[in-house]
Amino acid sequence: MSKWYIGAGEQNDIVISTRIRLARNIEDYPFPCKLDTKSRTALNKKIGDAICGRENLEFIEMKTLTQPQIVSLAEKHLISPEFASSYDGRALLLSDSEGISIMLCEEDHIKIQVMKPGLSLETAYAEADRIDDELNEKFVFAFDDRLGYLTQCPTNLGTGMRASVLLHLPALTACGQMSSISSTVSKLGLTVCGSYGEGSVPMGDIYCLSNQVTLGISEKAAIDNLKTVTLQLAAQERTARAEMVKNIETEDEIFRAYGILKSARILPVKEFMTLVSKVRLGAVAGLIGIKPETVDELMISMQPATINAAVGKNLDGRERDIERAKQVRQRL
Amino acid sequence: MSKWYIGAGEQNDIVISTRIRLARNIEDYPFPCKLDTKSRTALNKKIGDAICGRENLEFIEMKTLTQPQIVSLAEKHLISPEFASSYDGRALLLSDSEGISIMLCEEDHIKIQVMKPGLSLETAYAEADRIDDELNEKFVFAFDDRLGYLTQCPTNLGTGMRASVLLHLPALTACGQMSSISSTVSKLGLTVCGSYGEGSVPMGDIYCLSNQVTLGISEKAAIDNLKTVTLQLAAQERTARAEMVKNIETEDEIFRAYGILKSARILPVKEFMTLVSKVRLGAVAGLIGIKPETVDELMISMQPATINAAVGKNLDGRERDIERAKQVRQRL
Repeated sequence: MSKWYIGAGEQNDIVISTRIRLARNIEDYPFPCKLDTKSRTALNKKIGDAICGRENLEFIEMKTLTQPQIVSLAEKHLISPEFASSYDGRALLLSDSEGISIMLCEEDHIKIQVMKPGLSLETAYAEADRIDDELNEKFVFAFDDRLGYLTQCPTNLGTGMRASVLLHLPALTACGQMSSISSTVSKLGLTVCGSYGEGSVPMGDIYCLSNQVTLGISEKAAIDNLKTVTLQLAAQERTARAEMVKNIETEDEIFRAYGILKSARILPVKEFMTLVSKVRLGAVAGLIGIKPETVDELMISMQPATINAAVGKNLDGRERDIERAKQVRQRL
Repeated sequence: MSKWYIGAGEQNDIVISTRIRLARNIEDYPFPCKLDTKSRTALNKKIGDAICGRENLEFIEMKTLTQPQIVSLAEKHLISPEFASSYDGRALLLSDSEGISIMLCEEDHIKIQVMKPGLSLETAYAEADRIDDELNEKFVFAFDDRLGYLTQCPTNLGTGMRASVLLHLPALTACGQMSSISSTVSKLGLTVCGSYGEGSVPMGDIYCLSNQVTLGISEKAAIDNLKTVTLQLAAQERTARAEMVKNIETEDEIFRAYGILKSARILPVKEFMTLVSKVRLGAVAGLIGIKPETVDELMISMQPATINAAVGKNLDGRERDIERAKQVRQRL
C-alpha cells in the first residue's frame, strides 16, 4: 500500500501536510509515568486488541525496533521525539499507509495521529474522531464535564487535540517576515515552529503551524481558526513568491540548487533541505518539471535515520551523506 | 579556418598552450615612444606590406576596432594589456587561426607572437623564427654584437624572446604549493604568474610560466630550460592530482561545479573560472565526458569583452553574467 504522503493534497503549493493528534487517557488508570513497565505493556496490549483488527493497524512494541527504525519513525512524524527517547513499555499502532499512528503510553495512554497530504483538516479530524469513537466503545476515557478530556500535560486539557499543518514558506522566509508572522499568529491562539515541534529550528523553510488552545474551545472552532490562518499565510506566501520568481536571481538559485542535487557526491542533510526547498519552489512555479509531492517524499526519505533504516546499516554521518547524494541523483 | 586553440596539444592534461614572443626593432628608427602617430602609422604600413601577403595575415589598425573588440584581443592573449590601453598609431597583423599575431608599435616596433595548443615550444619557436627571418629579409634589425637584439625595455635585451606556457595546476594550488614553486622557478631563471602577465591574479588555477632571462643565453637554451621545468611541474601536478581525485570530496566538488555550470542563470567570470577549473580536472581524470580542449575554448570565449564582441552589444556586468550562463548551458 502506498504511503499517505504520496499523492497531491489541496493547497500543496504551500501546505505540505495536515496532522490531527488526539490525547486520551483511560479512566481508573494512572497516567503512564505512574505505571510500571509491566502494567504499561499490559495496557498497550489491551488497547491494541481493541482497535488493531478494526482499523487494520500493526501493533509494534518499541523495544522490538532498532535505534535507526525508532528515529526514522520520529523523522516521519509518526511518533514524537519524546516517544523516541525511551522504548520501555511503549507501543505504536501503525497503519500500512502510515497515515494513522497511535502512540501508546507516551505522556498519555493514547495519542491518536492522522496525517493527510496538503490541507485536509476536516478529513483528518473526521478520521481521528472515528478512531476515537471506536476506542470509546471499549474504554471509558478520563473526562471532566467542566474541563473536558483529562491529560497529563495541562496544555492539552479540554479537547486534547493538536491540529497542525506543515507549511513551505520560502518567500516569506526570504523577506524576513517569519518572526512578525510568529508573533501575529500567537495572538490568534496558534503557534509556528520548526517541523520537529516547539524549539526545533526550521529547515528547508518548512514550518509547523498548530493550535495552542485546547481549553474552552470546540474542536471545530480550533480547526476553523487554524484553517483560516493557514489560508491567509498561503495567500501572503503566494504574493511574495510571485514577486520573487520574477527575479532572475531566484531562477538562478533554483536551477543551481537543482543542478547541485543532481550532481553532488556528498550531501549533508542541512544543505539538502536548503537546496530541496528551492527546488520545491521551482517545481511549484513551473520552472522545474517535477511534482511538489515528489520533493516532499524525498524530504521524508532522505532524513538521516530514515536512510539508515532503509539501507539497514548503521552508516556514519559521512557515509550517509554519500548515500543521500547517490539516492537523490537516482531519484531526480 | 578553425582557431589555433581548437584541438588537443601535447601534455594537454596540464599544459593548455604555448606562446613564443619575439621583440624586434628596425635599425635607424627611434623606438615607438619616440615616434609621432603619423610616423608610426607609416612604419606599421611598411611592415604590414612586407609580411601580410607572404604569411596571409590581416592588417588591422587598432583605431578601427571597438573597445570590446580590443579588450577581447587581450583576453585571447593576441595582444598585451599594454597594447590594448592605447590604439594610437598601433596595428596588429593577425592570421586566420589567430595562431600568429604581430603587434606593431607596442613598446618595440615588432612583437611576433606564435601560439600553439599544449606543450609545443620547438614548433612555436620555429614558426616565430621563420617569420623573423622573413622580416629580416626586408628590414635590418637593431642588433648589437655584444648585447644581441636591442629592445626598448632592458629586460628583453639579447634574444628578445619570451617563451611561455599556460599551465593548469589545480592540485598544486589546492595543496598550497604554488608560492614555494614560484620561488624555486625564479632561481631557475623563470617566472610564474597569472595568465594575464606579471602582477595578474591567477584565475581558474591557471598560471603562466615564462623565461625571465634573455641576455647571455641562446633561444634554444631558454626553451630547453622552460621545457624541463614545465615537464617537472607537470609531473608534480600529476602526482598531486592522483592523490586528490581519490577523495570523494574532490569528486563531489567536480560534479557540483559541472552541475552548477549546466544550471546557473547568472555566472560571474570569477566564479565561472573557478568552476571550469574543477570541470577541466574532472575531464582530464575521466570523471566527466568532455575534452579538456573544449573547456579551454570555453574559457577563452567566456571572457567578458569576448562575450560582448561576439554578441556585438555593450552588455553591462549583469547582462553579461546572464549571457555567459546561457552560453555555458548551451555548450555543456
